[in-house]
Formats: sequence, C-alpha cells, structure tokens
Amino acid sequence: MLKKITSFQNREIKRLIQLQEKSRNRRKENVFVVEGRREISLALKGKYRLLSLYFQPEIIDFEEVIQIARENENPEITELNAEVYSKIAYRGSTEGLIGIFESRENSLEELQFKNENPLILVAEAPEKPGNIGALLRTADASNLDAVIIANPKTDLYNPNIIRSSVGCVFTNQVATGSTSEIIEFLQKKKISIFAAALQASQAYHQVDFRLASAIVVGTEATGLSEEWLQNSKQNIIIPMQGEIDSMNVSVAAGILIFEAKRQRDFKA
Amino acid sequence: MLKKITSFQNREIKRLIQLQEKSRNRRKENVFVVEGRREISLALKGKYRLLSLYFQPEIIDFEEVIQIARENENPEITELNAEVYSKIAYRGSTEGLIGIFESRENSLEELQFKNENPLILVAEAPEKPGNIGALLRTADASNLDAVIIANPKTDLYNPNIIRSSVGCVFTNQVATGSTSEIIEFLQKKKISIFAAALQASQAYHQVDFRLASAIVVGTEATGLSEEWLQNSKQNIIIPMQGEIDSMNVSVAAGILIFEAKRQRDFKA
Repeated sequence: MLKKITSFQNREIKRLIQLQEKSRNRRKENVFVVEGRREISLALKGKYRLLSLYFQPEIIDFEEVIQIARENENPEITELNAEVYSKIAYRGSTEGLIGIFESRENSLEELQFKNENPLILVAEAPEKPGNIGALLRTADASNLDAVIIANPKTDLYNPNIIRSSVGCVFTNQVATGSTSEIIEFLQKKKISIFAAALQASQAYHQVDFRLASAIVVGTEATGLSEEWLQNSKQNIIIPMQGEIDSMNVSVAAGILIFEAKRQRDFKA
Repeated sequence: MLKKITSFQNREIKRLIQLQEKSRNRRKENVFVVEGRREISLALKGKYRLLSLYFQPEIIDFEEVIQIARENENPEITELNAEVYSKIAYRGSTEGLIGIFESRENSLEELQFKNENPLILVAEAPEKPGNIGALLRTADASNLDAVIIANPKTDLYNPNIIRSSVGCVFTNQVATGSTSEIIEFLQKKKISIFAAALQASQAYHQVDFRLASAIVVGTEATGLSEEWLQNSKQNIIIPMQGEIDSMNVSVAAGILIFEAKRQRDFKA
C-alpha cells in the first residue's frame, strides 16, 4: 500500500527539511535531496542511486512516478498532500516530485577523463552557490573533462547548487579537495595549471591550451591563493579595459574555457 | 544649517523609498537613487547630475560628503540618523551615502561610439536585473562602444541593476529602444547584426567581428524574436556539447564579446 503523508509534523518530512537545509545532515546520512523532474532525470542519467521518491498527485501523474521508480531500482514511494508538498518544495506547484539520492565521495581519484588531453576547470572556494551553478552549466555546455572545487565552502549537494546548475552538477565529472591535494593530483597526471591572476600574467588568448590543461579561477573578492600562482605553468589574465576591474567569475571562466575549446577546434 | 531627518515618516524618506521601488516614480520625477560610494563616484564619473546627498555620519565622515558635494554642483545635503538610514539602505551599515541623480533619456541617438568600427552588445528583454548587471560589467571590462537593451522590462535605473552592475550602468554608453527601432538604428549606422540563435547559425568563432558589429542575445527561456533573426547578417551559435543546452545568458554574451575582442587583438 502506498504511504501517504498529510502532516507537516511527520518525522520523514522533518528529516527531508533537515537534509535540504543542512550540509551536516547530508554528510551524516550520505544522501541528498533533488527537486524537479529534469534535475531528477539528470541525477539518474548521472547514475546516482535513487532511494526514495515523494510526489504530489495533483501536480504529477502517479503513472509517471511509478515508471521512474520501476526503471530505477524501485525506490520507496510516498505521496504528499498539497499542503505538505508546497511547504517543502522550492518551486511550490510546478514539479510535484522530490527524490532522495545516495551521495558520492566526489574524490579526485574517481575522476575519469574522456580525452587524452583533458580540459579541466578548477574553482577555488567559490562564494555563491549561484556562481557554482553557472560554472557547472558552462562546464556541461563545453563538455569539460572535469570540474574540481578547491576548498569548497559547501558540499556539492546544496539545493541551491543543484537548482542553479539546473542539474548540471550531475552531468559533469565533479570532485572536491584541498588546494594542495588538487595541485598534487594535477601534477601527477601531468596536467598544466593555468591560474587566472593579475600579476605576472599573460593574456589568455596568447596561451596554448591544447595539451592537458586545468584552468583555475579564484573568487571575485580575493582571487586565487598563492599556492596556485606558484604552481602554475603560466598565470593568465583577461585584458580589462574598463573603468573597474570587475567581471563576474562565471563569465570570466566561460571566456577562458571557450578560448581553450576554440583552440581545440571544439574537438576535445 | 544642515537638514536632519530622524523619522521614518518623513515625507522625503517616503519619496526616496518610492523612487527605489517604483520605476513609474523614477520616470515621473526624472530622477533615480544610487547607494554606495563607488556607485555614486561612477555615476559622477559618467557625468550624471547629482541633485541630493543623504548621509549617515556614523558611517561616513561629513568632510567626505562635503567634498563630494563641492566638486559636484553643490547638491542639497541631508543627514539621516542610524535608524532611518538602515531602513532605506540595502547595505545597511557599510556605505553611509545615498544620492539622487537626474535621469537620462538613454536614447539611441545620443550614443557616441569610441571606435570607427564599433562593437556593440544588444540584449533583448533580459529577465533578471542580475543578468543585466553582469552584462554591463562584461561590457565595461571589454570597453564596448555601447550596450543597448531592447524592449526592456524595467528602466535602467532599477536599484538591482545599479547594484549588480557595481555601477557599470554609469560607465557604459547605454541605450534602450524597441527591437524595430534598434534594428533601424544599426542598419542606418551600417553596423552588422550577429544574432545568437539556434537555427541556421554559424559557429561564433568562424565569424568575422572585426568590422562594425552588434552582438545580439535573447533570453535563456525564449531566445531572440524573429525580427532579429531575419535582420541579422549572420546568426551565430556557441557550439554546445553537453547534456543540456543551457548556458547563463551573461556567460554566453561574455564568450561572444571576447571572441570579437580577440579577433580585434583587444585594440577596439
């Protein structure tokens, strides 16, 4: 028989809210929450393991829910009434579907590169989930080999990252690590580090990105840490000709990545 | 004697809030509100006429306020107490300064191009002030000749645009107009239209942007209107190789603009 939840005081609902709000709870349980059909389908495409599905029958057909469940290891299915659903869903009445998935380690060692000369984006300590989301969308569009977040300020399963990436957090190869770990990893793999910086830098379009390359960007406020600048093959800069030296970090990363793609003739 | 306001019920304060919140009021009075020292200094640099200054003496020195006033046509100066200031300021305790400036028409006819072969960005009906802000920052960084907003959904003096552009709305040549007016204007000026589109498009990096060019981008949701596609010299596309065709509009615009800059060797 199908389980139904009609009260906001229900223990499962409280757990779901904690998982949405608290990185600590996600880590402790090793699961995370995904809202929305497209996001859930991208998580499934990314081979994340679906554990539970919550749905609101006035928004999504039960048949559709059953089909998703059947094709994906038969997660537990729970019906939510409209009131409970609208309280836990960010997009109150448009999706009707929430899933709980098993987390991954996102360790550097598990990254698998598509290309012999991989192209990788590294972002150090990005401040805003929205910026990480935009970076992940650009990484998806350019089919990067991997996105690595150095010294992350949140886990990757933060609902704002999932949402702002429109699910691209699941379609990219992603990993996190400390700056030292990532530098060691890149050096071991013989991937050249190109650090976006203001000092001792060459204009980005005069640099050759055709061999194995990691483009590394820092925050808008403080830039990259010294460790990156000292371990880079070349520091790179986007020539700025305006009144203020200020470009959105995801715009800057997009410009650098697509210059690399252009040099590679969009082949790798 | 210096005017002081200590009550939130004061008529001038009510007017200020209306000017912040309502496009209609800004238009009716032909003025707009700028918060923050950097933003105000960029508005002054952009030769906007400063009419009034409001300051909070616990955050900014009166001497500094006086100096700004002296150098800029002696606007009326009003002191606000901490409580009133914190209620009308977005960044409650960091800036201490709010200015009222005279609006401009932002008409196409008033645009002045720096380069013989100008490079222009046109954005049609951008949805979010934050996206317009990021576009204006990119336009400033790349020293574009102009940014034109087609069929705008808000006036350019929306506080969210000023804030998210970190004042770049004042450092760029900006204009607004209907799509038809802008197309006519560009044709008259012999500026080629390159419309970002999915259909019948050529990869952006295979297009020559060295002559007078307008790069035109639409919204993420619906793209550009037919009128642009039919009046373009060439529709252009950023090759997408990911799971989803989804790139942030300001990232996409940044990629296109900087490819044009690269082709022009960052000289114009």
